[in-house]
Amino acid sequence: MSTHNVEQITDMNVDFAQWYTDVVKKAELIDYTSAKGFIIMRPYCYAIWENIVAKLDGAFKVTGHENVLFPPLIPESLLQKEKDHVVGFAPEVAWVTHGGSEELTERMCYRPTSEVLFCEHWAHMVQSWRDLPKLYNQWCTVVRWEKTTRPLLRGRELVWQEGHTIHATRDEAMQETLQMLDVYADMYENLLAMPVVKGIKTEKEKFAGAVNTYTIECMMHDGQALQSGTTHYFGDGFCKAFDITFSDRDNTLKHPHQTSWGLTTRSIGGMIMTHGDNNGLVLPPRVAPTQAVIIPIAMQKEGVLDACQDLLKTLQTAGVRAKIDTDDRSPGWKFAEYEMKGIPLRIELGPRDLAVGNCVLARRDNGEKATIKLADIATQIPLMLEEIQQSLYNKALANLTARTYTVNNLQEIDKSGFFLAHWCGERTCEDEVTKVAGVKSRCIPFEPIDADGKCIVCSKPSATRIYWATQY
Amino acid sequence: MSTHNVEQITDMNVDFAQWYTDVVKKAELIDYTSAKGFIIMRPYCYAIWENIVAKLDGAFKVTGHENVLFPPLIPESLLQKEKDHVVGFAPEVAWVTHGGSEELTERMCYRPTSEVLFCEHWAHMVQSWRDLPKLYNQWCTVVRWEKTTRPLLRGRELVWQEGHTIHATRDEAMQETLQMLDVYADMYENLLAMPVVKGIKTEKEKFAGAVNTYTIECMMHDGQALQSGTTHYFGDGFCKAFDITFSDRDNTLKHPHQTSWGLTTRSIGGMIMTHGDNNGLVLPPRVAPTQAVIIPIAMQKEGVLDACQDLLKTLQTAGVRAKIDTDDRSPGWKFAEYEMKGIPLRIELGPRDLAVGNCVLARRDNGEKATIKLADIATQIPLMLEEIQQSLYNKALANLTARTYTVNNLQEIDKSGFFLAHWCGERTCEDEVTKVAGVKSRCIPFEPIDADGKCIVCSKPSATRIYWATQY
Repeated sequence: MSTHNVEQITDMNVDFAQWYTDVVKKAELIDYTSAKGFIIMRPYCYAIWENIVAKLDGAFKVTGHENVLFPPLIPESLLQKEKDHVVGFAPEVAWVTHGGSEELTERMCYRPTSEVLFCEHWAHMVQSWRDLPKLYNQWCTVVRWEKTTRPLLRGRELVWQEGHTIHATRDEAMQETLQMLDVYADMYENLLAMPVVKGIKTEKEKFAGAVNTYTIECMMHDGQALQSGTTHYFGDGFCKAFDITFSDRDNTLKHPHQTSWGLTTRSIGGMIMTHGDNNGLVLPPRVAPTQAVIIPIAMQKEGVLDACQDLLKTLQTAGVRAKIDTDDRSPGWKFAEYEMKGIPLRIELGPRDLAVGNCVLARRDNGEKATIKLADIATQIPLMLEEIQQSLYNKALANLTARTYTVNNLQEIDKSGFFLAHWCGERTCEDEVTKVAGVKSRCIPFEPIDADGKCIVCSKPSATRIYWATQY
Repeated sequence: MSTHNVEQITDMNVDFAQWYTDVVKKAELIDYTSAKGFIIMRPYCYAIWENIVAKLDGAFKVTGHENVLFPPLIPESLLQKEKDHVVGFAPEVAWVTHGGSEELTERMCYRPTSEVLFCEHWAHMVQSWRDLPKLYNQWCTVVRWEKTTRPLLRGRELVWQEGHTIHATRDEAMQETLQMLDVYADMYENLLAMPVVKGIKTEKEKFAGAVNTYTIECMMHDGQALQSGTTHYFGDGFCKAFDITFSDRDNTLKHPHQTSWGLTTRSIGGMIMTHGDNNGLVLPPRVAPTQAVIIPIAMQKEGVLDACQDLLKTLQTAGVRAKIDTDDRSPGWKFAEYEMKGIPLRIELGPRDLAVGNCVLARRDNGEKATIKLADIATQIPLMLEEIQQSLYNKALANLTARTYTVNNLQEIDKSGFFLAHWCGERTCEDEVTKVAGVKSRCIPFEPIDADGKCIVCSKPSATRIYWATQY
């Protein structure tokens, strides 16, 4: 039971950033601490994350990956082994310099990502083609000393999984990179009801040390982009730096090809900014820790509580994650509370409903109410939850479609949304788009869009339009 | 597939410590890294841990606990808020002093445990009796800068869960502390097949800042003790230091009563040292990632591989975690490999077995072989796995019983084992036992053993014998 009081939250159309901050606090997802830049994932937030983890972890295992756990601290000399990588990460790592009262002979950083640790292990673990592939994943947290932070979206601690694999051939590694991007896309689309745009990052935007970075970009309610999951193909760069070799079937010594891929609790932030509204959080049923909440009306009346308990059992037997709120607060207070928390379905049951064998349903996503027979609960509620799931996806897809603009010059980039514009591939033109229009490149689509166009900056040939947007 | 070659491991009766180190390496559980004092949990080790986590996490949820995640770093001023606590932990924490190239205005430690973070949160979260209890748990890692480390038993990183709860009354908090000790005991006895001794730590051995520490002590194969899980009752000490108050039903302002409890991957080390033998690891079936491995004999012969695949399906349908090894190595190599990895049952199937509709089973725990009909697989294997589970528990219990000695003077403490000896309760006598006999107090049993005795040091009255042993 909570003393949480549902107060007004900021109007999302007036100040979307403040609306977001209000929601994550008032839906009891996160809290701040005296560890600046870090947050607490409260029970409700962590329960959502557990559902995301379950879905992804299952998919990782089905695709042959094994979970491991590597150390959280990296000696400075190890971090420095791959040149591009250290240049990318060194400016933002947290340094441990003392153990107890003793100064360390070599300082260590809290891992910002773990490529170097995996490579060091593989260097003495891999000798033969028989040892490949290695398909590893770990659920852990990493630290990056961000200057500005926003709960779940950008913090000094990233709660995530990081997959690390090495393969005998380039093709196998490339296939892995694309496969894991699809695993991420499936989680977003089918669990979080978020449509995605997939593609390749430009040289400028790729991961430090990678040959290619693939990305999933989602559109938030306000039209801005959220980079929602990335997979990286490293070629054999790290493997060369770490002297990882294997003797192949043809008895020649080769370097393996490497990938890594990561997805964080930022996915929860993205889900909030995709589906939420002015009454608070809106959770897709498949990821909601509680899918239906039963609110007894006039619960002191005979039979009401018993009927609610029966209803709860029926729902649980039907596989619905349901709970009942028998607290002594008013139904109105409870309605607001569970709206704020985004619980997909509210079920009201009072003496008058009971007398005629009915209950009242209220959908969180669109506010619609319906009266249904208690006898139909076990069949109707699971269907309705699936309908809500689909409806949320469709609504988000409509937003993505409506706010994706095909543009042919910089001046047309004048609002919030995704912009499809031609680009020659040169860094100077990419920088110019950002400087003039304020958007960054999001990704180059896998299938060319309007091949044979002209760069909107320099008019040189462009093989495809690419995605641009402002980003979180 | 692995290039791992099963070599001789050190005889456990010659050098138990070296035997242990050999096993954790050769069974592919752990690896070392250049991060000194830290280890890698390899896939096989992590899969064992996932089974422990699943069992405990389920029990935590059934008893009403919610998972959360608090920050990994603690500002120094926050750590210092509870006096006894900081004195206990400050000498062994890792200090983060820099974020990127900037020196922090206040250094932060990698959490050695998280009481202070939970208390800080509760201080502004709890106002009323309605807000209590808070029953939280987190799965995470903590760092303690240990000087000497041993894989899984004592490392600079502890992979664990830490439960943190606050309650309206002392009784409720005490009940929680004891309940969670029972949850731990159940996991050890029923999942890891390890008998436990439960009791209360002495003042000297209790957790820094606790009023009482309760403990589970297990006996290893060599007769030494392993502290295997602890729960702590804090009274209202931290709550006072952090100014956590609630207004009770009687409208008076009170401090809640607090507990915490933790269990680490040390449980895996304990399991190894309880059941392992000179052929390597021995895993209790309930916690084994693979419970039965099928080894095809003369697998190039017609029908053998198909029959093995059928067998695999039958086992999986019967709920057995099984796998088949179709690698081109010799059966003998595979036998040694899976013995080293402690897989409970090996199933051999070759053309001669197939011709008469049989297969050959070999038990890892006692080496017994049996021939059974293929038609009986689905019913017999699950029964046999349960028999192995029970047999391992019984063997460990017999060791615990045989090596628990009731002694009446210091001179009788002259071998490896648990010693039940009277003690007056004074710190000086406790220190004397350690100094003279080399053992430390393990715990004071909940039910007095031989009440009305005399301290083996000072001969003053003693209300119960307590447990003493050397420890890992």
